[in-house]
Amino acid sequence: MADRPEGGQDPLVLVSNRGPIQYSRDGDERTAKPGHGGLVTALAGLAGHLDDAVWVCTALSEEDAAVSREHNGAAFEEEGVGPGLRLRMVELDAEAQHQFYAVVSNPLLWFIQHHLWDLGSTPDITRREIDAFEDGYVAVNELVADAVVEEVEARGGRATVMVQDYHFYVMPERVRARCPEVFLHHFVHIPWPAPEAWLVLPPAMRASVLNGLLGNDVVAFHLQRSARNFVLGCQELLGLEVDLDRFTVTAGDRTVAARWYPISVDPDELGATAASPAVADHERRLAERRRDHLVLRVDRSDPSKNILRGFRAFDTLLDDHPELAERVTFLALVQPSRGDVPQYVEYLERIRRLVADVNLKHGTSDWQPIQLGLEGDFDEVVAAYKLYDVLMVNPVSDGMNLVAKEAVLVNQRDGVLALSENAGAHEELGEHAVTLHPFDIQQQADALFEALMMGGDDRRDRLARCAAQVRQNDVARWLRTQLDDVRALREAR
Amino acid sequence: MADRPEGGQDPLVLVSNRGPIQYSRDGDERTAKPGHGGLVTALAGLAGHLDDAVWVCTALSEEDAAVSREHNGAAFEEEGVGPGLRLRMVELDAEAQHQFYAVVSNPLLWFIQHHLWDLGSTPDITRREIDAFEDGYVAVNELVADAVVEEVEARGGRATVMVQDYHFYVMPERVRARCPEVFLHHFVHIPWPAPEAWLVLPPAMRASVLNGLLGNDVVAFHLQRSARNFVLGCQELLGLEVDLDRFTVTAGDRTVAARWYPISVDPDELGATAASPAVADHERRLAERRRDHLVLRVDRSDPSKNILRGFRAFDTLLDDHPELAERVTFLALVQPSRGDVPQYVEYLERIRRLVADVNLKHGTSDWQPIQLGLEGDFDEVVAAYKLYDVLMVNPVSDGMNLVAKEAVLVNQRDGVLALSENAGAHEELGEHAVTLHPFDIQQQADALFEALMMGGDDRRDRLARCAAQVRQNDVARWLRTQLDDVRALREAR
Repeated sequence: MADRPEGGQDPLVLVSNRGPIQYSRDGDERTAKPGHGGLVTALAGLAGHLDDAVWVCTALSEEDAAVSREHNGAAFEEEGVGPGLRLRMVELDAEAQHQFYAVVSNPLLWFIQHHLWDLGSTPDITRREIDAFEDGYVAVNELVADAVVEEVEARGGRATVMVQDYHFYVMPERVRARCPEVFLHHFVHIPWPAPEAWLVLPPAMRASVLNGLLGNDVVAFHLQRSARNFVLGCQELLGLEVDLDRFTVTAGDRTVAARWYPISVDPDELGATAASPAVADHERRLAERRRDHLVLRVDRSDPSKNILRGFRAFDTLLDDHPELAERVTFLALVQPSRGDVPQYVEYLERIRRLVADVNLKHGTSDWQPIQLGLEGDFDEVVAAYKLYDVLMVNPVSDGMNLVAKEAVLVNQRDGVLALSENAGAHEELGEHAVTLHPFDIQQQADALFEALMMGGDDRRDRLARCAAQVRQNDVARWLRTQLDDVRALREAR
Repeated sequence: MADRPEGGQDPLVLVSNRGPIQYSRDGDERTAKPGHGGLVTALAGLAGHLDDAVWVCTALSEEDAAVSREHNGAAFEEEGVGPGLRLRMVELDAEAQHQFYAVVSNPLLWFIQHHLWDLGSTPDITRREIDAFEDGYVAVNELVADAVVEEVEARGGRATVMVQDYHFYVMPERVRARCPEVFLHHFVHIPWPAPEAWLVLPPAMRASVLNGLLGNDVVAFHLQRSARNFVLGCQELLGLEVDLDRFTVTAGDRTVAARWYPISVDPDELGATAASPAVADHERRLAERRRDHLVLRVDRSDPSKNILRGFRAFDTLLDDHPELAERVTFLALVQPSRGDVPQYVEYLERIRRLVADVNLKHGTSDWQPIQLGLEGDFDEVVAAYKLYDVLMVNPVSDGMNLVAKEAVLVNQRDGVLALSENAGAHEELGEHAVTLHPFDIQQQADALFEALMMGGDDRRDRLARCAAQVRQNDVARWLRTQLDDVRALREAR
């Protein structure tokens, strides 16, 4: 982290579902694997500059739970996450964890926020979902709130608490009730939809979500559109007074601010990975198999990522341009995701089916048009980032999409970014990308062709501008801007 | 129509897809069947008070087309629709009609406006949809615009044009371009969703829809929420200047107003039907089959109507309350709808399957819990209106829902209205109804039980208040209010 963030005089309590490190067991040995990606690095880096910081997360693996028990559930030092940052893992009951994660957070909330339900048929809210909300989502939020409150109280009741994402919507209200002096800052990393999207939840649940979030001082998103939808939702669904110009909500005697800060990545960390021998091995292997053109996509297997329509567009491209036969390969590195949620199991099965169909239709004895990789190895991903000619990022809806930001930093073939207008990243990178309309198969096929055929100067220029934009608004700046705002708001209070 | 509407000094041109009358052939004989429902009656009644009015619609049946050809496509007198109102039927090419109606209007636009797509999978915009929009939707709008322009020009270029619904979004811009003096008023009878819902359409289509509507002077909806979403959409999707307090959009040198007028029914017309011998025959037949309690629903077979979840709720009710076995019947009068659209064919099949499953699970040799009627006979519907104990109206989303307003006028058993919070009618009738949360199966089951068990005084009181509200805001008032506003806006111009 190049810049030292300011404004962190108060102790800092970070909260997220997935912590900065995950433990597992390999035979007799315990291994600790740090998460990759800008967020963990940025937050860990920030904490490293502070005198007093603790990261509260849930114990996701068996070994996480064992580590937590060894510390009696209290915070502990873990050198793997950087100096000065203590870790506290909250152990959950397996059934509560399942209800919290695999019934409520995904798919229920995730699908609402990405418009993935077909409301004529799904979802059904039954006793199962109502119980999962109370006994899973709310119960886990309360357990984590207890841990947060303990950490805050151990610091005299004053701290800045930074909560991450959609797993903890109802927690802030509970922390606020017991720690009125705390400064609560909540970052929601996925899109916040228009008020009417929340009508899927029964009134009590939707009020819980909104009132829970209104326990914060700041509710932050990647995009202004989400902040606006949040404020509109408080007005329409709770009948609260709001200011649509200042993006604030009046909740009792408090004012809650909605803000937006587009997240980014850490260019130095990614650059180091890109220069590693492990990545070089993958590069050699990929280079041996390459044809004239390489189209790449890198995603979790999530319906919001629009993987099926991407393959249909590629199918249409091959229909429309038979001259591309045996000359282009679509490498799809898809990380299987949320295998405990039936919708995700079915989605992955449909992906495999469609890949087989497209390969059957267009493939030859020597050429499989789509290569589907399901390993989720990050070194392989970075190697592919370096080698693509066109990167397809076509989500239905996406808070930001960091694949687009990572890939443009390390690509070495003047690769063209083909980017959905519905990815948050489109606000920063759209003017240098080929824009994709994610529901329009024909347009995506035409855009892939345009990107593949684009002349060298144009490609080079666009890639350089994308990379410059990401370097200029990196994750350190993302975090610094938020902390500057936290300090200003705290002082104004 | 009790009151004479004011403000109709200009000639009036009405436009809708379905006209006030439909022709068919019975052997050698031509029959002319008037449409029922408040809208046709109200508009026909209005025209009867005017010196000069013409209704432009499309020829939906073979016989409609034959009638149109007999008049060389020009307007003609038809005594069946009332005095003073001429009729003009626009004949369409069969393929264009199919693309206009069964590809673009339904399902594409209808599903967007009722949130029925699951965006991770559907819809795909392919060459077929793009062509259907241009060669079907736009082409039909242009044909109808030509007819409207001819009628306006025949009246010296000054007229009030009142356009109905989602079939004709792109027409007003075209009429405006050729008849700048015209006053264009467009009523959209289905919900207008938040701006982000329109992102499903490729940018060119969504701009066509919005710019087409901005050819109007007034764009009217049933609810304020829809009007607000329309204004927000013009701001976010077209970047136009809007006034969210005055509900206006600045489009070039013109100001377009968004308004809301909750539609209603004609109590006298419905009362006459309810008193007819045909209805009495159905009543006798229904009474013979009745058990202690009759739950009723009346709907087109449309996914927005939420028929499947209604049956699941009834299934849950029977699970939770075995004492109701053989004592309650759910009569579902479902009119098969849009049989040329695959999604509707599948939905009807799923309805039949689910009814069979619930009847298999709970039924006895003597009792079928759900009686599914697919005939769509309006006399039978009115008879059932008179006899229900609980009326279930649980749409996922519904512009208004006139079943709720009709039924409360004629019910004779102190029937309780169980009404979705997402039906437009809920704004007027919700406080006297039992509210349904349309995605929550358990809540709907509990609400049905509450409605079935409600005491006599409460039932009587609620029904009387519902009926009084509908009588007070009847369809004549709905139309008069709009015409008063038209006159005021015309004078201000």
